[in-house]
Amino acid sequence: MADQIDQQEKSSRVFFHRTPPGSVPGSMVSDPKAPFPELHILAWSDGDFVDDDLGKPGDIRAYLQEWPLLWVNVDGLGDVKTLQEISEIFGFHKLAMEDVVHVHQRSKMEEYGDNLFIVIRMPYMAEGRISTEQLSIFLGSGFVLTFQGKKGDCLEPVRERVRKGKGRIRNAGADYLAYAILDAVVDSWFPLLEEYGVMLESMEEEVLENPTRETVGRIHSVKRDLLEVRRTVWPMRETINNLLRDEDFFQRETNFYLRDCYDHVIQIIDLVESYRDMASSLMELYLSSISNRMNEVMKVLTIIATIFIPLTFIAGIYGMNFNPEVSSLNMPELNWKYGYLFVWALMGVVGCLMLLFFRKLGWIGSLLGQKDGKNSSRSNQSS
Amino acid sequence: MADQIDQQEKSSRVFFHRTPPGSVPGSMVSDPKAPFPELHILAWSDGDFVDDDLGKPGDIRAYLQEWPLLWVNVDGLGDVKTLQEISEIFGFHKLAMEDVVHVHQRSKMEEYGDNLFIVIRMPYMAEGRISTEQLSIFLGSGFVLTFQGKKGDCLEPVRERVRKGKGRIRNAGADYLAYAILDAVVDSWFPLLEEYGVMLESMEEEVLENPTRETVGRIHSVKRDLLEVRRTVWPMRETINNLLRDEDFFQRETNFYLRDCYDHVIQIIDLVESYRDMASSLMELYLSSISNRMNEVMKVLTIIATIFIPLTFIAGIYGMNFNPEVSSLNMPELNWKYGYLFVWALMGVVGCLMLLFFRKLGWIGSLLGQKDGKNSSRSNQSS
Amino acid sequence: MADQIDQQEKSSRVFFHRTPPGSVPGSMVSDPKAPFPELHILAWSDGDFVDDDLGKPGDIRAYLQEWPLLWVNVDGLGDVKTLQEISEIFGFHKLAMEDVVHVHQRSKMEEYGDNLFIVIRMPYMAEGRISTEQLSIFLGSGFVLTFQGKKGDCLEPVRERVRKGKGRIRNAGADYLAYAILDAVVDSWFPLLEEYGVMLESMEEEVLENPTRETVGRIHSVKRDLLEVRRTVWPMRETINNLLRDEDFFQRETNFYLRDCYDHVIQIIDLVESYRDMASSLMELYLSSISNRMNEVMKVLTIIATIFIPLTFIAGIYGMNFNPEVSSLNMPELNWKYGYLFVWALMGVVGCLMLLFFRKLGWIGSLLGQKDGKNSSRSNQSS
Amino acid sequence: MADQIDQQEKSSRVFFHRTPPGSVPGSMVSDPKAPFPELHILAWSDGDFVDDDLGKPGDIRAYLQEWPLLWVNVDGLGDVKTLQEISEIFGFHKLAMEDVVHVHQRSKMEEYGDNLFIVIRMPYMAEGRISTEQLSIFLGSGFVLTFQGKKGDCLEPVRERVRKGKGRIRNAGADYLAYAILDAVVDSWFPLLEEYGVMLESMEEEVLENPTRETVGRIHSVKRDLLEVRRTVWPMRETINNLLRDEDFFQRETNFYLRDCYDHVIQIIDLVESYRDMASSLMELYLSSISNRMNEVMKVLTIIATIFIPLTFIAGIYGMNFNPEVSSLNMPELNWKYGYLFVWALMGVVGCLMLLFFRKLGWIGSLLGQKDGKNSSRSNQSS
Amino acid sequence: MADQIDQQEKSSRVFFHRTPPGSVPGSMVSDPKAPFPELHILAWSDGDFVDDDLGKPGDIRAYLQEWPLLWVNVDGLGDVKTLQEISEIFGFHKLAMEDVVHVHQRSKMEEYGDNLFIVIRMPYMAEGRISTEQLSIFLGSGFVLTFQGKKGDCLEPVRERVRKGKGRIRNAGADYLAYAILDAVVDSWFPLLEEYGVMLESMEEEVLENPTRETVGRIHSVKRDLLEVRRTVWPMRETINNLLRDEDFFQRETNFYLRDCYDHVIQIIDLVESYRDMASSLMELYLSSISNRMNEVMKVLTIIATIFIPLTFIAGIYGMNFNPEVSSLNMPELNWKYGYLFVWALMGVVGCLMLLFFRKLGWIGSLLGQKDGKNSSRSNQSS
Repeated sequence: MADQIDQQEKSSRVFFHRTPPGSVPGSMVSDPKAPFPELHILAWSDGDFVDDDLGKPGDIRAYLQEWPLLWVNVDGLGDVKTLQEISEIFGFHKLAMEDVVHVHQRSKMEEYGDNLFIVIRMPYMAEGRISTEQLSIFLGSGFVLTFQGKKGDCLEPVRERVRKGKGRIRNAGADYLAYAILDAVVDSWFPLLEEYGVMLESMEEEVLENPTRETVGRIHSVKRDLLEVRRTVWPMRETINNLLRDEDFFQRETNFYLRDCYDHVIQIIDLVESYRDMASSLMELYLSSISNRMNEVMKVLTIIATIFIPLTFIAGIYGMNFNPEVSSLNMPELNWKYGYLFVWALMGVVGCLMLLFFRKLGWIGSLLGQKDGKNSSRSNQSS
Repeated sequence: MADQIDQQEKSSRVFFHRTPPGSVPGSMVSDPKAPFPELHILAWSDGDFVDDDLGKPGDIRAYLQEWPLLWVNVDGLGDVKTLQEISEIFGFHKLAMEDVVHVHQRSKMEEYGDNLFIVIRMPYMAEGRISTEQLSIFLGSGFVLTFQGKKGDCLEPVRERVRKGKGRIRNAGADYLAYAILDAVVDSWFPLLEEYGVMLESMEEEVLENPTRETVGRIHSVKRDLLEVRRTVWPMRETINNLLRDEDFFQRETNFYLRDCYDHVIQIIDLVESYRDMASSLMELYLSSISNRMNEVMKVLTIIATIFIPLTFIAGIYGMNFNPEVSSLNMPELNWKYGYLFVWALMGVVGCLMLLFFRKLGWIGSLLGQKDGKNSSRSNQSS
Repeated sequence: MADQIDQQEKSSRVFFHRTPPGSVPGSMVSDPKAPFPELHILAWSDGDFVDDDLGKPGDIRAYLQEWPLLWVNVDGLGDVKTLQEISEIFGFHKLAMEDVVHVHQRSKMEEYGDNLFIVIRMPYMAEGRISTEQLSIFLGSGFVLTFQGKKGDCLEPVRERVRKGKGRIRNAGADYLAYAILDAVVDSWFPLLEEYGVMLESMEEEVLENPTRETVGRIHSVKRDLLEVRRTVWPMRETINNLLRDEDFFQRETNFYLRDCYDHVIQIIDLVESYRDMASSLMELYLSSISNRMNEVMKVLTIIATIFIPLTFIAGIYGMNFNPEVSSLNMPELNWKYGYLFVWALMGVVGCLMLLFFRKLGWIGSLLGQKDGKNSSRSNQSS
Repeated sequence: MADQIDQQEKSSRVFFHRTPPGSVPGSMVSDPKAPFPELHILAWSDGDFVDDDLGKPGDIRAYLQEWPLLWVNVDGLGDVKTLQEISEIFGFHKLAMEDVVHVHQRSKMEEYGDNLFIVIRMPYMAEGRISTEQLSIFLGSGFVLTFQGKKGDCLEPVRERVRKGKGRIRNAGADYLAYAILDAVVDSWFPLLEEYGVMLESMEEEVLENPTRETVGRIHSVKRDLLEVRRTVWPMRETINNLLRDEDFFQRETNFYLRDCYDHVIQIIDLVESYRDMASSLMELYLSSISNRMNEVMKVLTIIATIFIPLTFIAGIYGMNFNPEVSSLNMPELNWKYGYLFVWALMGVVGCLMLLFFRKLGWIGSLLGQKDGKNSSRSNQSS
Repeated sequence: MADQIDQQEKSSRVFFHRTPPGSVPGSMVSDPKAPFPELHILAWSDGDFVDDDLGKPGDIRAYLQEWPLLWVNVDGLGDVKTLQEISEIFGFHKLAMEDVVHVHQRSKMEEYGDNLFIVIRMPYMAEGRISTEQLSIFLGSGFVLTFQGKKGDCLEPVRERVRKGKGRIRNAGADYLAYAILDAVVDSWFPLLEEYGVMLESMEEEVLENPTRETVGRIHSVKRDLLEVRRTVWPMRETINNLLRDEDFFQRETNFYLRDCYDHVIQIIDLVESYRDMASSLMELYLSSISNRMNEVMKVLTIIATIFIPLTFIAGIYGMNFNPEVSSLNMPELNWKYGYLFVWALMGVVGCLMLLFFRKLGWIGSLLGQKDGKNSSRSNQSS
């Protein structure tokens, strides 16, 4: 079970291209495991609106004639035929439809004659990591079409606004609807990034107070995730910037709103970049922390060994079996009256000299003071 | 108590977005804990001026008709209704007002038809770290409006200059007033950055002379702070640069002043960047310092152990209990007349050889010389 | 045998220039070991096509007059005379032909009057590493010429499309054919890069769970390969971008397709860059992992040594041979009734104090917990 | 005494802004410790020249009317009133004068109507480090004004050229004089940078041959100095570049000379950047060198300990006091005829096995060969 | 002798400026040790050519009138008077002549009215390192003048082409000759860089298999050399690029050739940059390799010490001299029948437990397997 999850996780990280090199451009090969497309339509005029599920693509034609503004959403990209039918109704370019099906595109904006094709990526949290799903948007006169891989998205609040007529969404054109969708996607990045911010905060505390091997694994995994997020987020900036410069599809008034959306993308990029810097800095802090600890371990060993090794040597000396009877030069100390006391005194002096030496080197204070050191570091920070 | 402070500190570092993704653009959701708005007005003509607190937004209208130049300042963003009333009086755009309330904007400049919206961040020191507060400025013909989160700012000297008519502020237009405000904000960064400079100086001394674990914690925290400062300061550069290129709101003469202000922003960025480089360099120095110390610890251990281990082995040999009575080959040394002296001599020779070996490797000198080394390093620097 | 392979591998990595400095520009010096050129022609009109091997370059002339669109492919660059003949038939520039023969060019596009010269590099896997082969393309009105070093390429699917008339390749011009070739080459990068992705994934697991010296060697070799891939891939971006801006050779409709191809190049660069970041991050993780292990090794040594060294010292004390008969001060413990038990008790106390000390330092828990630590790190990641 | 120097050194490194935030722009607050301004004038026409000290600013007016070209130099910025008088005579802008007094400006060029304001920084060596002094230059028609903080500068050779009429300085206009001053300042950077080059060379030798803790301190201090130099030098490039593009103040012929000056600035930046790279590289080399030494220390310890610990154990065995009289199983070796010899043989075998083991690991050769290693490394470099 | 070489090597690395700051621009101060200039002339028309050494500069005038195209080469810059004479004949600018004499210029291109001044640097190998010599080129209508520091250059093949009339060099103009010279210089970089490539390859093998202290010294020295090469090579790119954009001196047809030359410069920069990355990566690999070895050293020590320290302790216990006659509690084991065997058994158990513990930690396998590890790493790479 855990293995399966692992497997999925991996396959989402390494990117697999589906069409073999050299195949006809514009050929759609859909993922065999992808769900079957389900169509949903929202259409409205100034005063009225409909909100329906559609059985087959052909039904769209009727709505197109009847309503001034349509939003068709397709969940699931598992059936190429259905997608082709939709594509024919609106006259989309084959290359764009290929990008709809191959769901590993970077965010981008492309003009194809009388409609605009936008790709943007929606984030979601899966197994503690940010994953992304591709949202493909077609914007034409009088309609917006969105394709996504599976049901469930961050656009529900936008639909609510259409249904309840909140804000100016019902009175504005298709460009404003496209903006509203983009804005909802862009804003949905914030709460997920904030989770990373919280994680980094707690890791920082951990590194300063009790770094373990798990810590470094987690820092690494955050770094790697942020690397991917960065790769996803940067093209969004360019995409929105290109939309801002577009003059065919977006009206001047909507541009004010797009500019706001662009601001949010910049904020996201800012956050990601500074989170990455923080993670790098934590890695460095971790390494210095490990070195510090090693230093302390070595000091303990050295102090103990250096004190006792000479003492043991002295004890070894007087454990030798030289025969005092052969000559009075052979270990006369053994027969001294105060020989044993003398040895203890000698050992005491040697031990104390060693302690003084280590005290002079400043090792002993630092070992005893290490707990307080940590405290004073904290108090220093918060004062 | 300490925990509460800690909590606040954190919440100010991780950025929390208030409006949920997909909400109507331009919707103002104010922080429930934010203070109630208090209005203050400064209005003047060539010869006269008023300096008043206002009870309700509606009062502004009278001033608008009467005085050629108004500066309305709003402290506290806790009541959306009040803010909306103000917004209607001046005809501000909803998106700009949304940014006023959501106080985590980057510095920026935006034109909305006949008024200019500027966001800039004011620094203040809180718990030993630089924090920032958002200052939102609207510049229109004949008025400047400033919004800030709470009472207390760095603009008091500007107000004084208006009251006392110092400099050309009373004779110049709204653009000059806006410049004066921006300049005061930009200049208020300097003293805070200088504190970081002093901190880095003292840390450098610490790392060179007595690096502890607290040191690395403090270096890290300075690096992290500077990272945030950098993120805040860079957009200021772009903002002022955009203002410099603006020709609708700023007169040519004011541009001289803005250019000066731009220079100061560049100086701030320069400072931040070189402080960051210094902090990175300190981290590196700290690591090399730790490695050095480890090296010295190991040398002490190695010298002591390597000298005494062979000696202890020799003592161990003559502590063995082989029976000399069985054969004269069994430990004849024990019965030698000068056996004991011979062993001491042997030990002396072995010990001296070891010392010579370490001397040849250059370990002993470096250990004894380490204190002097430090001194000579200092003298070298200051000579 | 292994040595030979090694030799080849090396010679392909270090770049050797063939013409001596200062030689006449446009002089073709072909690699003496390169295979003899073999010519193959594909020619088609709306309804018909031929697919032939050519005996000698001169045969091309007949095809040129007869068919509106030709694709001549030359495998092998070992005979300068043949190449010159071809060059004369089409009127290629000498400098371009020099670049065809010197197969270490960067990807580039150059206009020479009435034909366009494109160099692009085809990747293939050799001995577990990505290597590249140069593909030189000439695009003129009514023909495309491709030169490559040896038989076997990634263009077979394109030839199939021509033969079977799949897609619009038979109805479009030479520019579309050139695009199709470029696209096939660009897409052939993906599967190879995906292999690197899989390698990095498995290395990451290895570093987190059981890093060895082989691991670091492999990470290094991936980094070095990616460095080379990067050097190869970046110029492709510029090349395709230049083609996009070209208006003489590419029709507007083909531009849509080239834009798609450009998108793929960007994706490749994105992949390479993030793989490089991942490899760097792995190296760092490996280093921290090694430090961690060293720390644990040292803790084991320190705990054992620090516990037993004082105990051995105590045992050494009572192994001394001071003569108790000379004075009652000489080692009276030896004659105590409970002397031996007392020593064991003393040792027990000393040992326990040491253990308590290490427990307080938190060393013992971390050693015992290290296996669980690893597990919890994994579970943490996947939950 | 040393402390005072230290104090000054510090205050010059941390940057202190003098005017409080929010003060009137253009207000001059001079450093209370700055020396009183002393004026010096050089004026010349085609055939004649004067070279005088001026008592008061007002004296300048007479010279202005009489001579076609003036160079007024002001040493010391300690008296605001004097400076204001000068400013009024020439009609300088208040903002420029503020920058003259606040001597921590970056290099820059600003046009104020009919005169050009240039700031550039002159280097000098103080206490073994590069410090800089601000030189403010005003260029107008017929005059050049220079302000500097204290007497003593690098412009003496330019004055000599004026006095002796060397080169074209007496025949060219004010723009050529300004160029000559800038060129002298730019060229004065070279000898100081060369000193850093020499320092880096000697440090490299030190790191390769005998790295100590002082070495790392010195490398760090060079890095930090170069960081500051870089911060100072980069804006000079932009300044000269802006002057090159200026067409109001500089004649076409002078531009040839300015281009030469620009080249020198680029050379300075090149030097600084490569010195910084060298310093970083030295730090890295130092760290690897420390690791290497640690490795050797550990090998010595390990070899000695690993050889003698088993031997000591064997000796310990036969120092046990088991009673052979109780049973013949109790330490029969003690009564063997060749027992003692057997033990020595055993120890010899164990010791040799250990030595062979270390030889196989390649540790022993590397220890003995370390001195030769160093030599061969040198010879390798110079051959 | 070795010292002298060392001295020269150094002086070539640190850059020494010859004219003091503030000297008259355009003043030529030649290196007193530079050789006396020797002039050589190549002149040709369509059908004929001369190839002569010139005694004095004045002789050039005759050739100038007689031949349509001259190439004058000057070897040695030791005599200012000779150089000035040449300069006057052609009317070169003083600033250009100053740059000719001061041979530490970056590559650059400067237009001076009716002639073009180009500086480019020729590489040569000296003492195992790349050094460069300045080649100054003047291009005017009908002549090319080249200045170099000493005899011996990479232009001989170009002269051969002129003499033998190979290629179009005799039929093309002065611009083509200038191109041919530049191309020869650019191409002469390749063989030298290839040597660095081979060095890096062999170092990589060394680091993976047997890293020593010499290795790190050599990596460092390659890095430093490449840093200098990079500094030299980047300006060449800009120089050739500027020539490409020039329309006064270079004809359109020659531009094709210059573009080829530009391509080669880009290839050189590519090589240098990837060699630098490889060197950095090697340094990192070296560090990780050292850490690894340290780890293994520590494991050996820890295993041996940890096994024998407890055993020695046990032996120490039974070497104590407690008097069994006083009480039966005093070391009864000594009188057990199987006491000695029991101790051996106890030691065996303790030893085995330790071995099992280390086996569980995975230390023992990794030590034994380290040789195989290396092999498998290699085989892994090449399979």
